Amino acid sequence: MSQSEIGAVNRQFEEAARKGDLDRLASLYTPDAMAVPPDSRVVKGRENIKQMWAGIAQQIGLKDVRLNTLDLQVAGDMAYEVGEADLTIATGKAALNFVVVWKKTDGQWRLHRDIWNTKAA
Amino acid sequence: MSQSEIGAVNRQFEEAARKGDLDRLASLYTPDAMAVPPDSRVVKGRENIKQMWAGIAQQIGLKDVRLNTLDLQVAGDMAYEVGEADLTIATGKAALNFVVVWKKTDGQWRLHRDIWNTKAA
Repeated sequence: MSQSEIGAVNRQFEEAARKGDLDRLASLYTPDAMAVPPDSRVVKGRENIKQMWAGIAQQIGLKDVRLNTLDLQVAGDMAYEVGEADLTIATGKAALNFVVVWKKTDGQWRLHRDIWNTKAA
Repeated sequence: MSQSEIGAVNRQFEEAARKGDLDRLASLYTPDAMAVPPDSRVVKGRENIKQMWAGIAQQIGLKDVRLNTLDLQVAGDMAYEVGEADLTIATGKAALNFVVVWKKTDGQWRLHRDIWNTKAA
């Protein structure tokens, strides 16, 4: 059940990214989330994560995101996921690896730690 | 207590990396660990992770690693860490961000998921 709930949040993430709905995207993170983009320092908290996504989306011309879960394990109100992301951007396609630590708070699974890097071609 | 135990494993990781002791380095991971280096696909299992580290160490001329924990939260027999790594390599210095999901099995904390990317200068 938790696995399908987390999958549903990933679908919301994709939709928010596709629509450029940064408020919704940020709301999928915990208030005290940390995001770790490449070539950056750690980004802390929803508002900063929202600004981060705004910057990234503009920089790369983000059009579409598809998240593919390779491994997802749930332990109580925490879960950790290893996956791949296929992005459609201004210059074509890009592929990423990611690890997300999920946290369930108030009955809702949210991204709590989010880090990614480039995937091999 | 778990926090200091995990810190102790990070010190073992540094020492194994410094000495080029790949068997010991690999033994700090769970048998079913996954490592996610940049520009790669997901690397699964101790033996493959050992080969991965052998390749990376040779490629960059790894001399020293210092791990700096920014955030570490323990939940039962799982923990997740956000940190930075300062590397001494053939060409000088390099800095990384990382997220590690830790798992305690048989009374021992081990790296279970390990992903990193380059840090801002």
